[in-house]
Amino acid sequence: MAVATPFSVIGKRIPRVDAGEKVTGMGQYVADVRLPGMLVGRIVRTPYAHARIVRIDTSRARRVPGVRAVLTADDTAKKRWGAWIADQYALAYQKVRYVGEEVAAVAALTEEAAEEALSLIEVEYEELPAVFDPVEAMQPGAPVLHDEYPNNVALTIDVERGDVEAAFAASDVVVEETFQSALQWPAPIETIGSISEPHPDGRLTIYMNTQTPFMARPRIATALGVRETDIRIIQTFVGGGFGGKSQDDNNAIVSGLLALKTGKPVRIINSREEDFMAGPRPRVPMKIRVKIGLKADGTLMGKQLYTVADNGAYCAKASAVTGVAALRHDTTYKWQNVKSQAFLVYTNKAPTGAFRGFGNPSASWAVEQALDIAAEQLGLDPLELMRKNACEPGYLSPHGNRVTSCELRQCIDRTAELFGWEEKRRNRRPYRGIGATASSHVSGKRHFGDWDGSVAMVKVDEAGQVTVLSGEGEIGQAATTVLSQIAAETLGVPLEDVKISRADTDVGLFAQGAYASRLTYVAGNAVARAAANARDQLLALAADLLEARAGDLEIKDERIFVRGAPESKSTTVAEVARKTLFRRNGTAVIGKGEFDSDTESHDPKLRYGNESGAYNFSCHAVEVEVDPDTGQVKVLDYVTVSDCGTVINPIGAEGQVEGALAQGVGYTFSEGFLIDEGRLLSPNFGDYKIPTVADMPPLRHEFAESYEPTGPFGAKGLGELGMDPVAPAIANAIFDACGVRIHELPITAEKVWRALQEKKAHPGE
Amino acid sequence: MAVATPFSVIGKRIPRVDAGEKVTGMGQYVADVRLPGMLVGRIVRTPYAHARIVRIDTSRARRVPGVRAVLTADDTAKKRWGAWIADQYALAYQKVRYVGEEVAAVAALTEEAAEEALSLIEVEYEELPAVFDPVEAMQPGAPVLHDEYPNNVALTIDVERGDVEAAFAASDVVVEETFQSALQWPAPIETIGSISEPHPDGRLTIYMNTQTPFMARPRIATALGVRETDIRIIQTFVGGGFGGKSQDDNNAIVSGLLALKTGKPVRIINSREEDFMAGPRPRVPMKIRVKIGLKADGTLMGKQLYTVADNGAYCAKASAVTGVAALRHDTTYKWQNVKSQAFLVYTNKAPTGAFRGFGNPSASWAVEQALDIAAEQLGLDPLELMRKNACEPGYLSPHGNRVTSCELRQCIDRTAELFGWEEKRRNRRPYRGIGATASSHVSGKRHFGDWDGSVAMVKVDEAGQVTVLSGEGEIGQAATTVLSQIAAETLGVPLEDVKISRADTDVGLFAQGAYASRLTYVAGNAVARAAANARDQLLALAADLLEARAGDLEIKDERIFVRGAPESKSTTVAEVARKTLFRRNGTAVIGKGEFDSDTESHDPKLRYGNESGAYNFSCHAVEVEVDPDTGQVKVLDYVTVSDCGTVINPIGAEGQVEGALAQGVGYTFSEGFLIDEGRLLSPNFGDYKIPTVADMPPLRHEFAESYEPTGPFGAKGLGELGMDPVAPAIANAIFDACGVRIHELPITAEKVWRALQEKKAHPGE
Repeated sequence: MAVATPFSVIGKRIPRVDAGEKVTGMGQYVADVRLPGMLVGRIVRTPYAHARIVRIDTSRARRVPGVRAVLTADDTAKKRWGAWIADQYALAYQKVRYVGEEVAAVAALTEEAAEEALSLIEVEYEELPAVFDPVEAMQPGAPVLHDEYPNNVALTIDVERGDVEAAFAASDVVVEETFQSALQWPAPIETIGSISEPHPDGRLTIYMNTQTPFMARPRIATALGVRETDIRIIQTFVGGGFGGKSQDDNNAIVSGLLALKTGKPVRIINSREEDFMAGPRPRVPMKIRVKIGLKADGTLMGKQLYTVADNGAYCAKASAVTGVAALRHDTTYKWQNVKSQAFLVYTNKAPTGAFRGFGNPSASWAVEQALDIAAEQLGLDPLELMRKNACEPGYLSPHGNRVTSCELRQCIDRTAELFGWEEKRRNRRPYRGIGATASSHVSGKRHFGDWDGSVAMVKVDEAGQVTVLSGEGEIGQAATTVLSQIAAETLGVPLEDVKISRADTDVGLFAQGAYASRLTYVAGNAVARAAANARDQLLALAADLLEARAGDLEIKDERIFVRGAPESKSTTVAEVARKTLFRRNGTAVIGKGEFDSDTESHDPKLRYGNESGAYNFSCHAVEVEVDPDTGQVKVLDYVTVSDCGTVINPIGAEGQVEGALAQGVGYTFSEGFLIDEGRLLSPNFGDYKIPTVADMPPLRHEFAESYEPTGPFGAKGLGELGMDPVAPAIANAIFDACGVRIHELPITAEKVWRALQEKKAHPGE
Repeated sequence: MAVATPFSVIGKRIPRVDAGEKVTGMGQYVADVRLPGMLVGRIVRTPYAHARIVRIDTSRARRVPGVRAVLTADDTAKKRWGAWIADQYALAYQKVRYVGEEVAAVAALTEEAAEEALSLIEVEYEELPAVFDPVEAMQPGAPVLHDEYPNNVALTIDVERGDVEAAFAASDVVVEETFQSALQWPAPIETIGSISEPHPDGRLTIYMNTQTPFMARPRIATALGVRETDIRIIQTFVGGGFGGKSQDDNNAIVSGLLALKTGKPVRIINSREEDFMAGPRPRVPMKIRVKIGLKADGTLMGKQLYTVADNGAYCAKASAVTGVAALRHDTTYKWQNVKSQAFLVYTNKAPTGAFRGFGNPSASWAVEQALDIAAEQLGLDPLELMRKNACEPGYLSPHGNRVTSCELRQCIDRTAELFGWEEKRRNRRPYRGIGATASSHVSGKRHFGDWDGSVAMVKVDEAGQVTVLSGEGEIGQAATTVLSQIAAETLGVPLEDVKISRADTDVGLFAQGAYASRLTYVAGNAVARAAANARDQLLALAADLLEARAGDLEIKDERIFVRGAPESKSTTVAEVARKTLFRRNGTAVIGKGEFDSDTESHDPKLRYGNESGAYNFSCHAVEVEVDPDTGQVKVLDYVTVSDCGTVINPIGAEGQVEGALAQGVGYTFSEGFLIDEGRLLSPNFGDYKIPTVADMPPLRHEFAESYEPTGPFGAKGLGELGMDPVAPAIANAIFDACGVRIHELPITAEKVWRALQEKKAHPGE
């Protein structure tokens, strides 16, 4: 559905600004960066899930020709770091807590020397009892990972709004079920890597593929025991992040240690195996008991969640992920009475963390299926149930989320229309079924300190070049394209005149980086303000030149003229920028813009307050066919309609929806490893099955007509939305097709087949 | 002489901020930069001084394995470029005009392939009559270099203020002599080089060792026939410039052509021979007829100059150099009646151009000797003559230069004292003599467009790090150290908390770069204003935190406290910067500062107006001993006192004085090549004799107590001042020692010996 816009650059199908660099191979990813005298860094990882380090002998490794440093925890500051809970060392100190944890590190002239040295480091361990299941880990007597957390619980959430017991008592139907979500690896194509370059003044420049350079800086400084100002981070091209590169790993910290020790640049690029073991952290798996009550007419009465989340051995963003799972889904539908208890529990597995959707896919997996069950029990059309309870503009969620724009009903209606929901419901066929879900997501979140902002500057130089200075960076999601479009539109210049800086903590401007679907909305607002500020500076002088009032001027296609009189006397952006500078007491045209969302930081106990400046919404509908003989599920049709406000760049937005759906499909059907006593079996893409093109269902999708009044040109976030409710939509369709309800991800053919056998054996249940 | 200052960072002996990078070899000069897929570029240079290009056959060169491009003028835009006069092609078109001019270029995978291809390019020339002497070149019938200039005169200056003829008529003594100054190569240790990196969007990033990245950008764009915004220039570490790297050469233009042609990064690093032939342009040699008239008491009455300047084959900054030679010396002494005629003339030699001191050393060579001759004729102490006529604060020169601070008399008096002028004058010994000179120089000059400004921003980030964003760059003169000190002093933080950006035309701020001794004064003022703006932002919030008025607060050693109550409640810069950002609607502390000197652009005819915001002054005194048997001159003592306002960094300032003196000594005694029909014989450091440590005279120097009210912390320029009057001081001392007057630089032993023989033969003359 093409939407006519009054814009010149916004809403246009514009190829990403870094496309050329990428397709020609000129863009420098971290593995492409070469510095003079650079050493190869490698890491020794433990094969034990839980063990005491008795002794490390590095003497043989040190004697390997070409080896320049061999480090263990004794060579480090032994300072613990973490996003919120500081519990992880740069190199394991005294204990190891998961298979793959960093124990020692080597820097050498060549890969071969580093490899040989690794093999000669002798580590003596005393194995300790380990625990892998978070429910078991909460029990008294379970092995304890961190002394500060004797019951292994890193975080507890316990909130109630309204009165859920009364709500259930007043309900006509109450559904209570338990669902288990899965470990899913972000699996970006580019593994995590870094190059740390030491400077004579003691500073380190770290080239790395982080999503969040400015957030990484204090964490790395803490772990290295240096001042934050001693670290400069330069973001290289990033080959995908999906949350997994929002800096919850030791890679750059270890390259930093080796660089400081050797006085040489040190490069550590994770192998694929290392990336799976201890790289981008996998999604936090959760066991969720959900109880919901509804009136006969489908009105939602109350909801209760009891969540046990698997943190793995160290805590990074899993605490925030758990918070989202516990509370955010209440912004999709109009709930009044909700209670949520959640526990984030340490286990002897790889640390889990941020991944596209945060806690939303886990919560959706449980709640959207419970709603489907309730609809079935009440004999209601599930889409009708969704529609009836859908969030609307002005909605205040039980946890304080204030919704401004919301086109969820439009999404539901348009999904039904595109999908042919009514017709498909009427024409039921055996082993074919349809399911639907909805979701909401944020556009940034007040997470770190009391600020969810962004700073940008827009410079219009003496040659008319527009440069956007932003520290937000680019991780492959085309954020820099969107920000460039916003600057171009605001200034009335073509996109090709706009260049955008790379994220660099020294010369860049503070930015929290890529997470929480925040860049279009938060950074976009900052860039729009900076560009507007630059435009005002230009128009002030243009008014003199054109003998007009600044307020009467308009910029279009680089020309500045009196509004409504495009044929009259005019000037150009470049000319005005030049004249602003080249005159007595000339000034440079540099606009500054800041934006901070109108949100509240959550008190960790109370957990009340508007978490984001804007919410985005989507509806998904899916048709499946189940092979009763094999349990194989085939997705026949998939429709989704998203409300992300104004679509800044349709190509990019479509890519976000399709990419999110691909990860949703992988999450639903295939992603995960066999894990034996905390050990990943076959950590490679042969065994870890992300969907290929052949695995992708036919997909049709659209964007709702929507305008977010607080967003830049009406835009809000999008990137994570599409991921959230894929699995439950498919699960609901499977139930519709064959009457079996899958409670545990992923939905393998074997699970469906076994459920079908079970159903045949006990048809009444 | 240690001057007590109220400053914490200003005036301190602080090592340069890039010292560590330099002494450890980590700083990347252009030859250290490695880009993936980078090709080697090489240039074919003509062996003819003046010839028509009949035919170029590149077919054999193109077939050399590994060769990726061979270019001639036919592959270029054939657009001429130049600093003011556009007369030079990227590759010679139709004609060559000096030995060493670029005729063709090659890019290849290896040095060897490039070298072989060079040797296989066949160029057929038709030799043309050439002219090497500018006076001959002005004569009717002389060979013409450029059709637009049939008499070879690129520039004519002809101004008279007051009435020189009347002044001469009223004078008691009139001196008229002709002096010839010399070709001197800037000879930075690092040769000129560039790497041009093409981007898929058609842009070029050029890494280069220019002094003036933002000024190079339009020139390179013109020559390449692309838009200015298609060029990004990043300044690498620069191994000395001295004016010679203020971008008057084809190196980066040719690497740019080859990069655009091949689609690969191309690197061209001049060999030493190429650098001498066609790299940093040598000083403009001038033949100056000077006529001065004085009253018996030494009062200056009038001065007339007739100057013929040798431009070489193409015009870059030689026109401005000639202007300085013609007019600027009139700011040293109080002249009332002056007339100056000057001609800048094309010859078939390497183009001349900017070099430390611009036209001042040439003018000083003539005028300061004429003054010495007049003093001798009047029986006056030459130092007394200087003192009597020395410029004073408030002086308005005949050409409109307005002097604010001026401690020239203090410089003269203190030089006399340090040197023991009186005593040395009293105790004359045969073949020993003393001489003295004075000079004045600018602190920036309104040269390009109507702006002699600088833009800076100072960011105080959330960790308390101060980053100075400036596009001025660093060429080895410690400008970045001075600017960092100014920011640190203004903000009250230690220097180690301040980092400064590299010059980069994309993310940097417009800056004219390093020339005209402008950085301390012009850029320093911009940085001081930007830092003050950032400080105001900090103090506004600090006032809230400390419940005080912003105006009552002081910052010292990073602490912010109520002035006069250092023990009271306080906060820190880092804390306030953090709190300014991390709060609702937080803002980043980013100060912006612009400074434009209170100067006027010169009308090319009228040439009237104040050219600089501040003038610096110096006095030099020298004692020599002449060996009558060999003519060898030995400098026994050298004293100079400089007025550069507040000395921001004594280490750096001393380095400037000593370095300038070294180049002055080379200029005086040894620098120059034998040139045969426009061909440099032996262009290498074996034959081009810059002074070694052994050649340096004993030097004592000081800085006057001085404060420039318009300068940052009272500072003004310094870098060129010390170079200007070295040669005439030595020449005057030689005359004092043995009665011979040398009119032509350099002062070789042979010239002195011959003059002594001549004097013996004709003792009366």
